[in-house]
Amino acid sequence: MIVKLERIEVQSHRDMEMIDITAELETAVARGGLHNGIVLAMTTHTSSGLLVTEGVECLERDVLAHLERLAPKEPPAGAYHYWHNRCLDYDGRLGFNAGDHLKSILGGVSCFFPVENGKLVRGSRQRAYFVEYDGPLARTIVIQLLGDGA
Amino acid sequence: MIVKLERIEVQSHRDMEMIDITAELETAVARGGLHNGIVLAMTTHTSSGLLVTEGVECLERDVLAHLERLAPKEPPAGAYHYWHNRCLDYDGRLGFNAGDHLKSILGGVSCFFPVENGKLVRGSRQRAYFVEYDGPLARTIVIQLLGDGA
Amino acid sequence: MIVKLERIEVQSHRDMEMIDITAELETAVARGGLHNGIVLAMTTHTSSGLLVTEGVECLERDVLAHLERLAPKEPPAGAYHYWHNRCLDYDGRLGFNAGDHLKSILGGVSCFFPVENGKLVRGSRQRAYFVEYDGPLARTIVIQLLGDGA
Repeated sequence: MIVKLERIEVQSHRDMEMIDITAELETAVARGGLHNGIVLAMTTHTSSGLLVTEGVECLERDVLAHLERLAPKEPPAGAYHYWHNRCLDYDGRLGFNAGDHLKSILGGVSCFFPVENGKLVRGSRQRAYFVEYDGPLARTIVIQLLGDGA
Repeated sequence: MIVKLERIEVQSHRDMEMIDITAELETAVARGGLHNGIVLAMTTHTSSGLLVTEGVECLERDVLAHLERLAPKEPPAGAYHYWHNRCLDYDGRLGFNAGDHLKSILGGVSCFFPVENGKLVRGSRQRAYFVEYDGPLARTIVIQLLGDGA
Repeated sequence: MIVKLERIEVQSHRDMEMIDITAELETAVARGGLHNGIVLAMTTHTSSGLLVTEGVECLERDVLAHLERLAPKEPPAGAYHYWHNRCLDYDGRLGFNAGDHLKSILGGVSCFFPVENGKLVRGSRQRAYFVEYDGPLARTIVIQLLGDGA
């Protein structure tokens, strides 16, 4: 049985950004020698996420804009407030990214694809994305392989 | 170790529709001889999803109606627009289903159940659903088994 | 190969509540002797969920409040209604928790962490939460281990 784990680093360059990591998953599968099984990925950060959707630039903009509409960084004036934007964080900083944690929960923090004969099994339009909600930052993603070798 | 993959086809008959696939997961587990392990399922399409919820018809209607409220096919007039509904798609079609991709992201594209002694481990109310957001279409779901045989 | 399953019970004490179960996942990994692999968890109830986010009390309040804003127990007067809140449930009770099922779908019902050398691989801020949307109730979570022993 193959059980392998690797960490990759992704550098975001904007406050919010979608970064296609499909090739990184394919590389991990090849490097790890996984023939049949599953490749899972997870962000290690609570104001970022991983999700699977179609890989076109116009949709990337929609995903980020819509998650911002559903969980805005600044609540609409007078409508409600975030507690996390007021409490003194345990590490001495003021928390101010409640909306970004909420986006991470709505969009999800992990994804997976089955692997068959060494290839990711995914729909022709499906791409795996790392989603930055609170950048720019250097971020770590863990990629895990489970299954059988050749 | 058992590592098996199968594809099933689901035909949706409406624009938006919830289709219970719990029995298909049970059949895959039996057919694959999985005794203890996990069964995972994933849609291969970016305007559909998989999710787990209670299996009653009135709730199915609520799930579809509410996801349409949260990520409408047509944005409220004057409120915002989708870029994906305007850009020329790479395959020569006009994209027009941004709201359906967003529903897919919010509701999720995969699910899993543990398997114990050949049976799905799930709550008495839990059902696995394929969710069509942009039908009617013939859709492919991949089902993967990981674990041990009898 | 290690394939182990256990069930833990969580007692919620409020209508909506976030309960940190990270320690329970760590205990399951230690008890099961998993050295390298994955630990997955799933709620068995359709009006509760599991999710991963930062572990601070102010954010816990935001997560619950925001999911209630996105999928309220009572729809805004005149705006829309839930069918599940009107239909006669199959077990003779009136369904009245459509908003809580919707929260469960939005926040998710499962989570996982890779395990490396017997330790959960997770970001320093990441915690696994059971989320009660319709309590107080005694709830069952299944925890599954897949991978290799020492």
